[in-house]
Amino acid sequence: MNTQNANKLQIGIFVSPNCYIPDIIGVYTVFSVVPDCEIHFIWENTDLIVGYPNFPMHATTTFAECPPDLDVLCIGASTGILSDEALKFLADRGNKAKYLIGICGGSLMLAAVGLLKGYRATATFSLVEELRNFGAIPVTGGEVVVDRNRITASPVSGSFDAALIVLGKLRGEDAGKEVELTIEYAPHPPYGTGSPELAGHELTQKVVQKHEVVFEEFRKAARQASERFATVKV
Amino acid sequence: MNTQNANKLQIGIFVSPNCYIPDIIGVYTVFSVVPDCEIHFIWENTDLIVGYPNFPMHATTTFAECPPDLDVLCIGASTGILSDEALKFLADRGNKAKYLIGICGGSLMLAAVGLLKGYRATATFSLVEELRNFGAIPVTGGEVVVDRNRITASPVSGSFDAALIVLGKLRGEDAGKEVELTIEYAPHPPYGTGSPELAGHELTQKVVQKHEVVFEEFRKAARQASERFATVKV
Repeated sequence: MNTQNANKLQIGIFVSPNCYIPDIIGVYTVFSVVPDCEIHFIWENTDLIVGYPNFPMHATTTFAECPPDLDVLCIGASTGILSDEALKFLADRGNKAKYLIGICGGSLMLAAVGLLKGYRATATFSLVEELRNFGAIPVTGGEVVVDRNRITASPVSGSFDAALIVLGKLRGEDAGKEVELTIEYAPHPPYGTGSPELAGHELTQKVVQKHEVVFEEFRKAARQASERFATVKV
Repeated sequence: MNTQNANKLQIGIFVSPNCYIPDIIGVYTVFSVVPDCEIHFIWENTDLIVGYPNFPMHATTTFAECPPDLDVLCIGASTGILSDEALKFLADRGNKAKYLIGICGGSLMLAAVGLLKGYRATATFSLVEELRNFGAIPVTGGEVVVDRNRITASPVSGSFDAALIVLGKLRGEDAGKEVELTIEYAPHPPYGTGSPELAGHELTQKVVQKHEVVFEEFRKAARQASERFATVKV
């Protein structure tokens, strides 16, 4: 790594087979317009990954190539079962990263490898209570949760919100304001039903039940990770 | 195509080397949770595509494999220069699609192949006036513009807004409300500077000037497409 690279922000986005692509796009979008910034899509290798659902992509940086000290490490939801190597990588780089971002089921995975113990954290409304099983303090309501250097958010748009907040911490609020305009992040949700509070009980129950099978897969992936991590960590 | 497929919504997302990935993600995210719906990332072939900036991915469906009548055809910004074959494909499927979505520079490209002649349309604030050169009627202000079956929007979050509106037209407003909750699309932009109106003149001028080189590349790609399309169309 030359001196120029050493001065660049190093943004790591953890990807894996079945990772939910929309959860990582906000972080990618925000930092992709930041000067002096390198973005790494990180996985075991750079072979084809099929993101969830059916999004064929590749990592750009392997675990071995990933800088030891990232400015940001981000992970989104994934139904994929992570290897011991992947869990160890996540815990190692997560502990060393200046800021950690967990989006939706991604915050479950951070919690599963011990990175949110005693931290206030959130996830999508169907998964947020599961955080308690891994020692985190669940926060509902849909706002981005910032506890020290660990930032968690609900899916998709939460990835933009969290990334803009972290950019403000790294480069100052003016940099955050500038990027929010550059990516024209002024959403107009057409129906105003994007949270349980906005949508009401009936629609929320319908959505929870309809997608419960997928949510259970996210929980299962995190539980397996937590159990296995207990046996692999030093 | 079997009977089951024939009943599925067919969503086409046009990709290409240097296509701006954040512009297409909203459409992908929204339709990926819609039942009975097939999403096609469409390009000449399924070789590696490096999206802008540095996002390695693949199309899932070639031009030859793409259904003739799409329910939705979406295109985002790209600095890539499209081949004659790609331009003809875009014009053909665009004319036949039930709904057309152009995001950011993508609406310039739709206009360049004659698909927005006489239509009200928008794009990112640095590109919107360019639409006039291709016979469209530019609309500023950052809202999604719906003119008959052609829907255009500003970048990134515009892709979510436009897709939710089109979903409402295809499957009814209740389906739109349900998906808006499913993807938890209740954004919290942290700085409130996501449009020229919100950010004010000074910051807007700064952003316009800073990224003018890239915007000029989008304009150039659309102008070249328009000139070449005039010579290739039947």
